[in-house]
Amino acid sequence: MKFSQTFIPTLREVPADAVIASHRLMFRAGMLRKLSNGLFAYLPLGLRSFRKVERIIREEMDAAGALEIKPTVIVPGELWKESGRWETMGPALLRVKNRLGGDFVVSPTAEEAFTALVRDELSSYRQLPLCLYQINTKYRDEVRPRYGVMRGREFVMKDAYSWHADDKSLDDVYQAMGRAYRRIFRRCGLTVIPVRADSGAMGGSGSEEFMVESEIGDNTLLLCGSCDYAANVEKAGCRPDFEPQASAESAKKAAASVPPVEKIDTPSVKTINELCAFLKTGAKQFIKTLIYRAVNVELDLEKGDPAAGLGPAPGCAGLERRRPAPEAPFVYPEAFFAVAIRGDLDVNEVKLAAALRAGEVGLASDADVTRLTGAPPGFVGPVGLRGIPVVIDHSVTAMSDAVTGALAEDLHYRHAAYGRDFEAWMIADLRTVRAGDRCPLCGGGLYEKKGNELGHIFKLGAKYTSSMSVSYLDENGRSHVPLMGCYGIGLDRTLASVIEEHHDNAGIIWPMSVAPCHVIIIPVKYDGAVRAAADRIAEELEKSGVEVLLDDRNERPGVKFNDADLLGIPLRVVIGDRGLSLSSPVVEIKHRREKENRGVALDEAAAELAEKVRAELAI
Amino acid sequence: MKFSQTFIPTLREVPADAVIASHRLMFRAGMLRKLSNGLFAYLPLGLRSFRKVERIIREEMDAAGALEIKPTVIVPGELWKESGRWETMGPALLRVKNRLGGDFVVSPTAEEAFTALVRDELSSYRQLPLCLYQINTKYRDEVRPRYGVMRGREFVMKDAYSWHADDKSLDDVYQAMGRAYRRIFRRCGLTVIPVRADSGAMGGSGSEEFMVESEIGDNTLLLCGSCDYAANVEKAGCRPDFEPQASAESAKKAAASVPPVEKIDTPSVKTINELCAFLKTGAKQFIKTLIYRAVNVELDLEKGDPAAGLGPAPGCAGLERRRPAPEAPFVYPEAFFAVAIRGDLDVNEVKLAAALRAGEVGLASDADVTRLTGAPPGFVGPVGLRGIPVVIDHSVTAMSDAVTGALAEDLHYRHAAYGRDFEAWMIADLRTVRAGDRCPLCGGGLYEKKGNELGHIFKLGAKYTSSMSVSYLDENGRSHVPLMGCYGIGLDRTLASVIEEHHDNAGIIWPMSVAPCHVIIIPVKYDGAVRAAADRIAEELEKSGVEVLLDDRNERPGVKFNDADLLGIPLRVVIGDRGLSLSSPVVEIKHRREKENRGVALDEAAAELAEKVRAELAI
Repeated sequence: MKFSQTFIPTLREVPADAVIASHRLMFRAGMLRKLSNGLFAYLPLGLRSFRKVERIIREEMDAAGALEIKPTVIVPGELWKESGRWETMGPALLRVKNRLGGDFVVSPTAEEAFTALVRDELSSYRQLPLCLYQINTKYRDEVRPRYGVMRGREFVMKDAYSWHADDKSLDDVYQAMGRAYRRIFRRCGLTVIPVRADSGAMGGSGSEEFMVESEIGDNTLLLCGSCDYAANVEKAGCRPDFEPQASAESAKKAAASVPPVEKIDTPSVKTINELCAFLKTGAKQFIKTLIYRAVNVELDLEKGDPAAGLGPAPGCAGLERRRPAPEAPFVYPEAFFAVAIRGDLDVNEVKLAAALRAGEVGLASDADVTRLTGAPPGFVGPVGLRGIPVVIDHSVTAMSDAVTGALAEDLHYRHAAYGRDFEAWMIADLRTVRAGDRCPLCGGGLYEKKGNELGHIFKLGAKYTSSMSVSYLDENGRSHVPLMGCYGIGLDRTLASVIEEHHDNAGIIWPMSVAPCHVIIIPVKYDGAVRAAADRIAEELEKSGVEVLLDDRNERPGVKFNDADLLGIPLRVVIGDRGLSLSSPVVEIKHRREKENRGVALDEAAAELAEKVRAELAI
Repeated sequence: MKFSQTFIPTLREVPADAVIASHRLMFRAGMLRKLSNGLFAYLPLGLRSFRKVERIIREEMDAAGALEIKPTVIVPGELWKESGRWETMGPALLRVKNRLGGDFVVSPTAEEAFTALVRDELSSYRQLPLCLYQINTKYRDEVRPRYGVMRGREFVMKDAYSWHADDKSLDDVYQAMGRAYRRIFRRCGLTVIPVRADSGAMGGSGSEEFMVESEIGDNTLLLCGSCDYAANVEKAGCRPDFEPQASAESAKKAAASVPPVEKIDTPSVKTINELCAFLKTGAKQFIKTLIYRAVNVELDLEKGDPAAGLGPAPGCAGLERRRPAPEAPFVYPEAFFAVAIRGDLDVNEVKLAAALRAGEVGLASDADVTRLTGAPPGFVGPVGLRGIPVVIDHSVTAMSDAVTGALAEDLHYRHAAYGRDFEAWMIADLRTVRAGDRCPLCGGGLYEKKGNELGHIFKLGAKYTSSMSVSYLDENGRSHVPLMGCYGIGLDRTLASVIEEHHDNAGIIWPMSVAPCHVIIIPVKYDGAVRAAADRIAEELEKSGVEVLLDDRNERPGVKFNDADLLGIPLRVVIGDRGLSLSSPVVEIKHRREKENRGVALDEAAAELAEKVRAELAI
């Protein structure tokens, strides 16, 4: 491939909005251009690397027994209505009406389309397990697309889905996918941190995220300094720094020696800090109680009695509920909860949403707080609180002599004890784990990193197969709903992450596996004997399957060297008149990682380079 | 590849809406499933063939010097507003609003996106010519998607675009693309008819369509029985069956001996047939005059004086006109024209639209006819017609003693002569050519075929580069607008057309180049020695790069044979106990095209099959 015959518009300037290395370098190396906010075009060189990532993923998916199919990018909205996600998915879902008024979706993910396809074909247990995947265009209507293809609106995702007769089979494929993912990222030259993660809007339980460290990561990770525990803050646990009580009963006993709860005047004292100062106590003595508004709460199945749902909970009788689809579980469009946690801790809203099976949670308005508790904000507490379900974090179960709001302006309680003075409608792990907390596995100290998610594997269970009425017959002719798993990798951000991990001030340093070309040949001047030697090496390399970029441009050597460093092609050969005029003609070879050129006999250059390429590809 | 480990849900039943062979067979062979009207999912076997078509196209594009890039599928509406197509393109353009209210388009074609990319990078003539392409998802919001992937809503298209400093360079690339297209279709085993075609909404002149014959074709082709002339009826010409007059002046002279024009009573005679009967004359003596309404007429440039436009034409003073984009030519949203043609001929609306540079033309309403001509429909004629531009077909220029409407109820003229009794505002070829007309090249008889368009190459000229303000500097530093070409192939319909051309009653008969696999191995029962022999042949074949489908299912041989015929894999090996038990063990080989099996020594089977595959792939 000759430089002059391809299209590599390198830049010295960097677009103003390119704050991370991959974004900057993909633009500068002429790999990428912007069409609009969050919409990018890969130019020839960028596409070559992109296709290599794609090929690695395809090879590993095929090797893991997944079968590639190609559904459409535009998918009927009907399928999303069946699964219920038409309603529950937020505005990131790009919806389209066609000319006939039909509803369509530009796929952000394809559980519905794949499930619909399998539903029509699945009849017998003999067809299970089945694992299908696609590598296809996706769209998420990000409000603030940033960082180039790291967080674009349109992107390409490999998404696989599997169906199973039992948990064992689901787990087998889930594990196989995990292994394939580790191989994929290793082959791309990426250091990933596999973390247990919240499965968010995808539903189900059992999931693993494959993260790369990044200053601009969307995710906060908690890692243990002593063992290999790694978790997304959204789901991270920690070893408790209190003695949890086994039950409200045992908590009540523990409070036997505590004086009775007592109302105290706390004039104009609203924040925990003010209160600590006023009472000369620490935040750990305080029970913080917040009122949350939860959207699309799906608690029915949790309660055992689907007909009851949230109904029997305090203040919830007559709450509006509906089914997004005929077979889908009931959903409460809006419900409120009082959430109590120890004063020095923070409520993790993702954990809270997961505990409540809610689409979204957020702090209630002041007006709602007063309406629901009778107290002004700042004076809510669990003692005597009626008319709203009280959800407490485990930390509160260990509190037997606490300060908390007394449900009236300028009043607090002291000596409040869980089990004696108040109980909980639900106890859950709601605590935001922080650097310095102790590892739940080994007790070591946890530290934080920012990370970007490249891949994610989930056990979805029967969420989609039941709402979309998928079934198969077992060997006895009985009908069952299959279990399902799903497994995604974002190609664009995988490629960008390779650059994040492999670059220096001068440009990209590609791993051989995803480099746009293996070797760049730089004739100091593309003319005469130098040209002949360059052509010969290029030809020999191409014959042995090595991908070559020959810089035949009429540019100064400095410009060519700078561009070569910027493009980051792993091996560089420089051919000049001086080396060729020696009695044994010599060219200069350098790995992009190395600083110094090394002279190699012209006659041996191609063979040596080909050998280096093979060796690095074999890693 | 083992049958039981892939996903090939073959069907005996055919979906009710599958009226053509490819649609039927792709469903029956488990290659394709429907997600919604016009939206299809390729299953593993279908995708294998699809990818082979894709690879052939990519190889030929790369060989022709085109560079692959990957823009997005969702494209900013702003670009379409710049080019003017946001307004001029009909409802087949799927428009989307994102969450922030921005306008987007699901790409049906990508002139705008590519032009915008090149605009930002192009500076010097040294960068030209440049030819870029993508193979990517497209969407056209067809009202009546039909015939499976032959006319789906979402599809994959290879679309290439080129930019040039001059006509010669455009023509070189245009010709190279034409050669690449011929190779692509030949490699896919397709017989294509290259036809000159109207370039329709794409604008510009100089285009060639690559058609396959099809009973359900969208296009009517006219082919010459004596030479290789082939044209789309939308643009087909024919040798005139009259003596055309060089000018209105010479026509006037020719009419010297004709009696003066004379009004005749034709009570209640409206159709040409009634008139012929009434006057005892033939339709060829009659001038048929129709009033057309044209939408988005872009006539300015044709008239030399852009400021004048249609203004000076009869009845057109003060006609509304506007620019869809700041740099785009003026467009008249609505204009009316009287169109006259010899009575036995039909107006070709595509030719008329091209002559008027209109987005669309259609017959005017009766009310408009009366308003514009003062005459009731059926009595319009060119003699004395004022207040509307008169456009005549060449056939009318030869008429010197014609009957035509006299612009009043129940009245006609006879002895009407072009040049003497009326003139024309525009003379054009407007005639619909029909089977039986004479070839414009050799005078031979033309016949008709229905065809489907698989590919299309166009010279676009400066349509997009001027409306979207693209420029480059020549060697003297002067700024120019580059010329542009565009070149498309529909992948899905190319694949479907291969099946249309290569099938029989039992199923598909794949050409080796696009077959999902090269060889199907059928062990009569996958067990014991038969299983060992099947595994061995599969392994040997796979080692030599041959793609194998091994039917390891526990099915009756009849079922396997039927499925093998249905799937259409070119070479079939049947392995049974009887053949293996011979002193020299034998297996049976058959090409899908052949009727009879042929015994081949077990030890030689793999080598012979591999040789056959290589030979057919080399074609």
